[in-house]
Amino acid sequence: MAKIKRLCTLLLRLMALAATLSAAIVMATSHQTTTFFGVSVEAKYSHSPAFKYFVIANAIVSVYGLLVLFLPPKSLLWRLVVGLDVVFTMLLTSSISAALAIAQVGKKGNSSAGWLPICGQVQNYCDHVKGALIAGFIGVIIYMLLLLYSIHIALDPLLLQKT
Amino acid sequence: MAKIKRLCTLLLRLMALAATLSAAIVMATSHQTTTFFGVSVEAKYSHSPAFKYFVIANAIVSVYGLLVLFLPPKSLLWRLVVGLDVVFTMLLTSSISAALAIAQVGKKGNSSAGWLPICGQVQNYCDHVKGALIAGFIGVIIYMLLLLYSIHIALDPLLLQKT
Repeated sequence: MAKIKRLCTLLLRLMALAATLSAAIVMATSHQTTTFFGVSVEAKYSHSPAFKYFVIANAIVSVYGLLVLFLPPKSLLWRLVVGLDVVFTMLLTSSISAALAIAQVGKKGNSSAGWLPICGQVQNYCDHVKGALIAGFIGVIIYMLLLLYSIHIALDPLLLQKT
Repeated sequence: MAKIKRLCTLLLRLMALAATLSAAIVMATSHQTTTFFGVSVEAKYSHSPAFKYFVIANAIVSVYGLLVLFLPPKSLLWRLVVGLDVVFTMLLTSSISAALAIAQVGKKGNSSAGWLPICGQVQNYCDHVKGALIAGFIGVIIYMLLLLYSIHIALDPLLLQKT
């Protein structure tokens, strides 16, 4: 039973790693050049601080996810993992929300502020960003599940060892 | 000792409640009317989905924070509070990140997307939003501390009871 649970968690962590890694890569490779009234305009993730933050956050969480996979099952460091999961899930949540807010303005614009939507001009770029956001969202959901599961179960052996 | 700890948590929860409540109120009351080339323009939080989300999230967390204050110390519901703290801290983190991303565009603009900064025109409104973001940020930090503390300590009695 414990083995099946461990396998499930490992599988979830692998999926989360795949999701955050692909989110970072898809966002980082998103760019499109278009001509607009004769002027060549390039749309790139690095033009928006929120998208840069998204790439960096997903890259950091991917590195963390990779390191956790190699942690031996009996390691005392697992005690730290719950706390680290909290911190990194916050980081992912925050980055995806910021990117989503900017993407929403990019798609719909904001008429009160006079910000025009840009997705009509750079459709490919917008599709790329949408893909990255979906991958990032899957990553957040999996980390959230892992976290609630950790709080519920993983602290058990930790505290049984103490008593 | 346990009494002091309980008092500290209670105090932190009170501070978090004050922070989220004032964040919601300050953001919800932020509006400014200005004339721009002879046209009257109103800047209001409800014109941006991210700011609306910020107000709603802070209001929800305020209600939750208020309810938790009235939870009796021996209540079995405290077992739930750790999980709920995770969910509501995520909600706060997400709302403040989205609002911050939009506020950054409002302040600095985004030259690649052709979005002009608006803070020069509606300085009062921007100051209001800044105040709300600072209050929200304080709320997130306190909830984060409470959460890491809960994970570290509050699960202890819960699991001792089980064994």
